[in-house]
Amino acid sequence: MEENIKKQVEEQMRIISRGVAEIVPEDELKSKLYRSIKENRPLRVKLGLDPTAPDIHLGHTVVLNKLRQFQDLGHEVHLIIGDFTARIGDPSGKSETRKQLTEEQVKANAATYQEQIFKVLNPEKTTVYYNSEWLMPLNLADVLTLASKYTVARMLERDDFHKRYTSNMPISIHEFMYPLMQGYDSVVLKADVELGGTDQKFNLLVGRHLQKEYGYEPQIALMMPILEGTDGVQKMSKSLGNYIGVYEEPYEMFGKIMSIPDELIIRYFELLTQVPMEVINDYREGMEKGELNPRDVKIKLAKEIITMYHNAEEAEKAEERFRLVFSKRDIPDDIPEVELEESEIWLPKFLYENKMVSSTSEGKRMISQGAVRVDGEKYENENLVIDRSLVIQVGKRKFVRVTKK
Amino acid sequence: MEENIKKQVEEQMRIISRGVAEIVPEDELKSKLYRSIKENRPLRVKLGLDPTAPDIHLGHTVVLNKLRQFQDLGHEVHLIIGDFTARIGDPSGKSETRKQLTEEQVKANAATYQEQIFKVLNPEKTTVYYNSEWLMPLNLADVLTLASKYTVARMLERDDFHKRYTSNMPISIHEFMYPLMQGYDSVVLKADVELGGTDQKFNLLVGRHLQKEYGYEPQIALMMPILEGTDGVQKMSKSLGNYIGVYEEPYEMFGKIMSIPDELIIRYFELLTQVPMEVINDYREGMEKGELNPRDVKIKLAKEIITMYHNAEEAEKAEERFRLVFSKRDIPDDIPEVELEESEIWLPKFLYENKMVSSTSEGKRMISQGAVRVDGEKYENENLVIDRSLVIQVGKRKFVRVTKK
Repeated sequence: MEENIKKQVEEQMRIISRGVAEIVPEDELKSKLYRSIKENRPLRVKLGLDPTAPDIHLGHTVVLNKLRQFQDLGHEVHLIIGDFTARIGDPSGKSETRKQLTEEQVKANAATYQEQIFKVLNPEKTTVYYNSEWLMPLNLADVLTLASKYTVARMLERDDFHKRYTSNMPISIHEFMYPLMQGYDSVVLKADVELGGTDQKFNLLVGRHLQKEYGYEPQIALMMPILEGTDGVQKMSKSLGNYIGVYEEPYEMFGKIMSIPDELIIRYFELLTQVPMEVINDYREGMEKGELNPRDVKIKLAKEIITMYHNAEEAEKAEERFRLVFSKRDIPDDIPEVELEESEIWLPKFLYENKMVSSTSEGKRMISQGAVRVDGEKYENENLVIDRSLVIQVGKRKFVRVTKK
Repeated sequence: MEENIKKQVEEQMRIISRGVAEIVPEDELKSKLYRSIKENRPLRVKLGLDPTAPDIHLGHTVVLNKLRQFQDLGHEVHLIIGDFTARIGDPSGKSETRKQLTEEQVKANAATYQEQIFKVLNPEKTTVYYNSEWLMPLNLADVLTLASKYTVARMLERDDFHKRYTSNMPISIHEFMYPLMQGYDSVVLKADVELGGTDQKFNLLVGRHLQKEYGYEPQIALMMPILEGTDGVQKMSKSLGNYIGVYEEPYEMFGKIMSIPDELIIRYFELLTQVPMEVINDYREGMEKGELNPRDVKIKLAKEIITMYHNAEEAEKAEERFRLVFSKRDIPDDIPEVELEESEIWLPKFLYENKMVSSTSEGKRMISQGAVRVDGEKYENENLVIDRSLVIQVGKRKFVRVTKK
């Protein structure tokens, strides 16, 4: 019996540790798992979400995939929509990024969020909360109690605060309250584990500290790595334009995933899918030995991800279209990319603006001469309006991939 | 007209500046006075009081006397009983000095306070507030707004915070809220001037800053010096035992005031009484020229103060008793002082404990032989119990002044 539980703990740890950056402290997580199995009591695994930017991309799904693994091991996920700060906004009024949202906007964003999130999570084992529920009623006396549990010096140890303080950049006192509020969420929820990116380590440990201060068992901080974007260098981010949104059309996703550097394939598999590690390791070895073509593994990755956020059929279709366009028509896969600025544009104008022809009339002529291909197909109608993502080819060597914003 | 107002401003400034340590900024105070006179609109002068220690001593009356001068110039006094913090206590639980009080205790303390305060202030021109009125209803959103108005770096410039931070002594985050709460009182009250000791400078300036942040005219910070105690060296303080309580019996006060060093006489007159500066300057000159005996000026001071906190008749009586005891019986006025520990003590025991005799039996013998005088009167009853302040003399040269706690 005892041995059996220990074996189960090891098995759960193996799954939980997949792709993880850090677990603090690991021993305590083992003890919690042990008790969880012994007493048949699922762990309460927490994730906080900021509802100001509702559209999530694959970078955000790294933690969601980890949550899903916890659910598959029988644990409970507790999602907190941080509507409180979204609704009050940043009172300093200095930050452009933190805008005040109405209750309706927050609700709408949260709904969008959930729709996207439940493509990864199991809704049966997920509870969603709005933290305004317990933060809104706090009065000054409660806030003083909360603020008394943490010291100024420790708060100033947080990387960003430390940098700003030592370089004489102002830190408003209310900014010290945000990590405390996030930590208070853990107190209220009695979280066993809180997930976040490695950039959240400080905040997760504040939650751990506050739980102890309020007399509860402290949570484990589990940090996932920050995902690189399609460029393979910088973190995936909407503003850097190197992101893949979970709401994107299948063919869009397919193209973007196919554009990632080969070095990212295994990492994306590990962090963004539930494909077993055994299979992933086979892919790795196959590529290392030259038995597998990275392009084929990338196609598997693309289909896996499209299946998660759309379905298997769409994944098949996207692959088919991709093969048709790229493989059969000899379109190179490292062609330049142009983002569509307007919602639609007249093809000859587009060709001219992107310097594929020297004037719109030359554009029209080339089209009528059959020298222009769209997604590999010859296109002879000069009135074509571009309003979706596709690949345009002029003559033999001029290619451009159009992506829609 | 214009000239006349300017003259009045100068006259008010002369009175307001009496004994003041610092006015920040002085020019703005002049502008406020100018407008006040021109528009016949009294200034709103604020003082915050801590109701945890209700018994006030002369050290506390320095600001009260200044407030009285404002009132005599036609201005309004707004007293704030800081009941909020007294009622919530210090949530860190680390400070022994800041205990949580019940609403009843705060009310009782505040009543005692007012009784003592109105011996200096004009109740007609005084409004009393409890700051729980506006602090209690603040919710987390309000607190964040308040906290956003001040930076961590500026807060850490406060002397005590700075010392603690640089010497790695913990500062809890809620401690940063106290100056903000005090400052918020000024916002709510729309104070024109806030008074405090020089140790309050930082807090008074926080109030000034917050008023600006909330879009109001900023207050003037007026700092009074910290009064030296009867020892003439350290600040007057109950714990140092060098204080004169405003609630003390007339004769008690008289004795204590007579014990202050001569160098303090003028300062006490200036800071603790409403005697006009012209008269005080005459005293100063008289003593400097040797035309006045400091002891006689001190008697005037004692009577002046006793008249404020008791009445003129009691002041006369105290002087009479003093003269009888000290002057007529040749008791020196620099005799050692002993504070009565218990509520009462048997005279021979007292003599023994204070080394005026070598045993209680010697004490009894001395008493029966008529070698012991109490307040200058021979005392032959060995059963005397000491339960009040008085002077005891054993033989020709052993004196002690007993003071009651």
